[in-house]
Amino acid sequence: MTHPDLLRAKIAKANLLHVMAAHSPLSARLAEEAGFDGLWASGFELSALYGLADVSLLSMTQHLDMVRAMAGQTNLPIIADIDTGYGNAVNVDHVVREYERAGASAVVIEDKAFPKVTSLLDGGRQILVRVEEFQGKIEAALCARASRDLLVVARTEALIAGLGQDEALRRARAYEEAGAELILVHSKSKSPEEIVSFMRAWDGSAKIVLVPTAYPQLTGAQIEALGKVAIVIYGNHAIRASVTAMQAIFRLIREDGGIQRAHDTMVSVEEIFRLQDMDRVKRLEAKFLR
Amino acid sequence: MTHPDLLRAKIAKANLLHVMAAHSPLSARLAEEAGFDGLWASGFELSALYGLADVSLLSMTQHLDMVRAMAGQTNLPIIADIDTGYGNAVNVDHVVREYERAGASAVVIEDKAFPKVTSLLDGGRQILVRVEEFQGKIEAALCARASRDLLVVARTEALIAGLGQDEALRRARAYEEAGAELILVHSKSKSPEEIVSFMRAWDGSAKIVLVPTAYPQLTGAQIEALGKVAIVIYGNHAIRASVTAMQAIFRLIREDGGIQRAHDTMVSVEEIFRLQDMDRVKRLEAKFLR
Amino acid sequence: MTHPDLLRAKIAKANLLHVMAAHSPLSARLAEEAGFDGLWASGFELSALYGLADVSLLSMTQHLDMVRAMAGQTNLPIIADIDTGYGNAVNVDHVVREYERAGASAVVIEDKAFPKVTSLLDGGRQILVRVEEFQGKIEAALCARASRDLLVVARTEALIAGLGQDEALRRARAYEEAGAELILVHSKSKSPEEIVSFMRAWDGSAKIVLVPTAYPQLTGAQIEALGKVAIVIYGNHAIRASVTAMQAIFRLIREDGGIQRAHDTMVSVEEIFRLQDMDRVKRLEAKFLR
Amino acid sequence: MTHPDLLRAKIAKANLLHVMAAHSPLSARLAEEAGFDGLWASGFELSALYGLADVSLLSMTQHLDMVRAMAGQTNLPIIADIDTGYGNAVNVDHVVREYERAGASAVVIEDKAFPKVTSLLDGGRQILVRVEEFQGKIEAALCARASRDLLVVARTEALIAGLGQDEALRRARAYEEAGAELILVHSKSKSPEEIVSFMRAWDGSAKIVLVPTAYPQLTGAQIEALGKVAIVIYGNHAIRASVTAMQAIFRLIREDGGIQRAHDTMVSVEEIFRLQDMDRVKRLEAKFLR
Repeated sequence: MTHPDLLRAKIAKANLLHVMAAHSPLSARLAEEAGFDGLWASGFELSALYGLADVSLLSMTQHLDMVRAMAGQTNLPIIADIDTGYGNAVNVDHVVREYERAGASAVVIEDKAFPKVTSLLDGGRQILVRVEEFQGKIEAALCARASRDLLVVARTEALIAGLGQDEALRRARAYEEAGAELILVHSKSKSPEEIVSFMRAWDGSAKIVLVPTAYPQLTGAQIEALGKVAIVIYGNHAIRASVTAMQAIFRLIREDGGIQRAHDTMVSVEEIFRLQDMDRVKRLEAKFLR
Repeated sequence: MTHPDLLRAKIAKANLLHVMAAHSPLSARLAEEAGFDGLWASGFELSALYGLADVSLLSMTQHLDMVRAMAGQTNLPIIADIDTGYGNAVNVDHVVREYERAGASAVVIEDKAFPKVTSLLDGGRQILVRVEEFQGKIEAALCARASRDLLVVARTEALIAGLGQDEALRRARAYEEAGAELILVHSKSKSPEEIVSFMRAWDGSAKIVLVPTAYPQLTGAQIEALGKVAIVIYGNHAIRASVTAMQAIFRLIREDGGIQRAHDTMVSVEEIFRLQDMDRVKRLEAKFLR
Repeated sequence: MTHPDLLRAKIAKANLLHVMAAHSPLSARLAEEAGFDGLWASGFELSALYGLADVSLLSMTQHLDMVRAMAGQTNLPIIADIDTGYGNAVNVDHVVREYERAGASAVVIEDKAFPKVTSLLDGGRQILVRVEEFQGKIEAALCARASRDLLVVARTEALIAGLGQDEALRRARAYEEAGAELILVHSKSKSPEEIVSFMRAWDGSAKIVLVPTAYPQLTGAQIEALGKVAIVIYGNHAIRASVTAMQAIFRLIREDGGIQRAHDTMVSVEEIFRLQDMDRVKRLEAKFLR
Repeated sequence: MTHPDLLRAKIAKANLLHVMAAHSPLSARLAEEAGFDGLWASGFELSALYGLADVSLLSMTQHLDMVRAMAGQTNLPIIADIDTGYGNAVNVDHVVREYERAGASAVVIEDKAFPKVTSLLDGGRQILVRVEEFQGKIEAALCARASRDLLVVARTEALIAGLGQDEALRRARAYEEAGAELILVHSKSKSPEEIVSFMRAWDGSAKIVLVPTAYPQLTGAQIEALGKVAIVIYGNHAIRASVTAMQAIFRLIREDGGIQRAHDTMVSVEEIFRLQDMDRVKRLEAKFLR
């Protein structure tokens, strides 16, 4: 259902795409209903769903299976977070072919060494691979595609690793040179200044992707005004919203020793039926069960 | 980590166990932190997570894999919802052995025909198998266990199917006779009367399991006062809480065109790190990375 | 890589397609190299690989995952054995969409009740669903396709169940009427007479698929001469060949207390490298590793 | 079914254990029937089954799932090939816990860098991690075990990487010092001399594991006579036997245009039924189907 060409077309048409993290077909469907432009198949969110730290513990196939399940249940284009590509350029070749087959519209590869450490962690061990090595991975990804519509997004963690704007610019330019059409520049600075400064200095022709988790005060309108930003990814708000709600509801049920009050704070069972498309099941039953 | 004997011990010790639905290791961990006594590995919740109707579409291995993932990340006993046993008594034999290996402390088998239709659906097609057939399935489950500590719970859908209290009692007695130590009696009546009446009439020695989704006004204290109820299951409140929150947050982000306000309505990224046990990763890095 | 239209085109062009069973990408690749026209993604073979009886124990996703893995590693069209459709017509809808997404070119649904018992078993419990019920399943399968190129093959087990030629003909006609373009007629008679007689009596316009496991003496040339047979499936010879060889080699190694003689009876490690396409890895390394 | 303590007990009791490679529950069962002492859950064999090069493309969970499936269908202890541990010491911690839960009796970790290149490849890119780094991985593995019965085998590829006997000895001693009870020393020399020489020089107290694929002329009796060898692993003969047979049979069927001759060269369908334990299904049906 998800077509790579759709994402490319959306980028060409819109000033800025708003993309929501998803960790399941259910969250994907909710993002689609809310009107987002695409889905971020987040390794961080899926690791969290499995109770695992986001340090390359979740296996490639665990993530791939969820991307595929999402692709079967939504019409939104899926931007797949493939971390470091799960190894070197040979792994990238294998991985990109599998994600394309699974229905991804784009893959995002980051320039950290495998195994990676999650980006926003205070004092996290952040090691980048050499520029030339990562260029090889970008080229392997581009070459592995069955269709040129699959977008390959190069993500630089130079700012995350504390290497400064010059290194971030140098890497972004090198990745564009290797063929990346989009560059994701990640920052964990609590102020938008780091990214705003990067955007002012960015002189490449590749469009930029931002993930403002650490600097939420930067609005979509401001991001659009920066120019050259194609996509803003809300990177982990689906799982954080879920956790917030489960903690509150679980506490309420424990306090009450029952669901008498909790019941009224949440959507009905019928709303879940709607999201599961029980109406379709009823139509199938009426038409084909004999 | 999850030991079958733990559930049996807990039942022996407590007047009433409060068990929360879970659809992932993350929700399992949250339920454990909130103080629940056990986990309900719900087929309804996991089907919903996958965007699928709860009509035997999710495969046995999809559910089993999630039960195993949960068992690896929680110390709570897991009560596995195995629907109809995914077929006949031969399937039950296979399925019970797999769930026990995966770390389940109990399995719940229902007396509906395969493929099943979700219980709370208005006008759902509800077909039960013959009593003798279901007795064979209970006996197959009991016989398949490697350890007698694995609890086999027989679930009757007689009230769900509109067959009335006498049929529910007849089936519950027959299932006890076949060896079930616990009987789950499900009701979709909006009033607790149906269940209260059943409990008054219940004269067997098997303890009862209730799922008060449809009649939330019945409190834990009232359930305990009914006597003979060993476990109350809060059957789908983890996924309903998650959906409620994702819908609200997604709407807010769309309205704002950014995460500026959403950010403050949810747990921090650091709280997710805590739930992923990033501290353990840091300890492992300090100890073993050289 | 596998395109549904390819199978349709091959059927149109050839007098008879020879299709080999496969239970893995490796066996698929060997069948392709040997010159077969297509692959039979056999539930029997995959059940055997997993050490499971072919009685609906293997889950849908276990089989689906292997079909998808094969589709990624071969250019041959894959005919997927989906047993009974894993339930009723609602399951069929779900299952067909998943197999089409996984890369299958055709699905074969049989008219046995779920859970099924393997066909060739002496004294096996063989129960068929009503004709109308199975017509509903065929129609659901046809309706579920994203592309009309996916072939839906209706398989009747009337002869397997001992119901005789008239019932087999009646069912084949009814399934054609429901829209099946191909009918698989299975027989466990040790003599080809049963099938030969059926073929002489067959007056429908749907082409027939045969699986001569029980009557191997019927040659491909004789099958072609019967007319109206589009495909012959060699249904379990990949796994039987593997078992035969492993038993012999394991015995030899045990006898010798080492691999000194066994070594010379089998293909070299280099031949396995070739089948794993190590040359492609070397090319990728040379091109992209820096 | 497979108990870690069983492998330890077997090692204590026997002069030399003969362990056969397996890539499926079926091959595991055949090895058990043939009288082998244990199973080698080979990454090379499973990669080959999936048509993938053995260069860290197969995901951890793909291999883990197969180990678990084998553990459910055999009584033999399973020695799991976990390659490099799928990353660094943090990954090793996660991986070892998962393999132990899946039923492995031992894990073998090798001192190559991730992603690895298969050992026997001519001119393969072989890079080892530093000794201290690998000691950290061994210690992480030992620490991750739930039971001390799980054996941690350290595998050195020093000879494979062409670093010579002194480096192999230095590494073996360092790994023993880190706590490894068994050391696997791999060689791709076509003559047994390299290994024989290593064994003569080995002065540690850890027992050695050998994989004589490249030097098959070294018999079990000769290996036993070397002293200090606890286990000999026949590392890929199950998949090589299968390939040999499928190639021959597929060729024969193509030549004949049918299975008339092939049929007599292989085990019967009834033999497959036996291996699938159809008799057990019949007993279950007789006892529990009503």
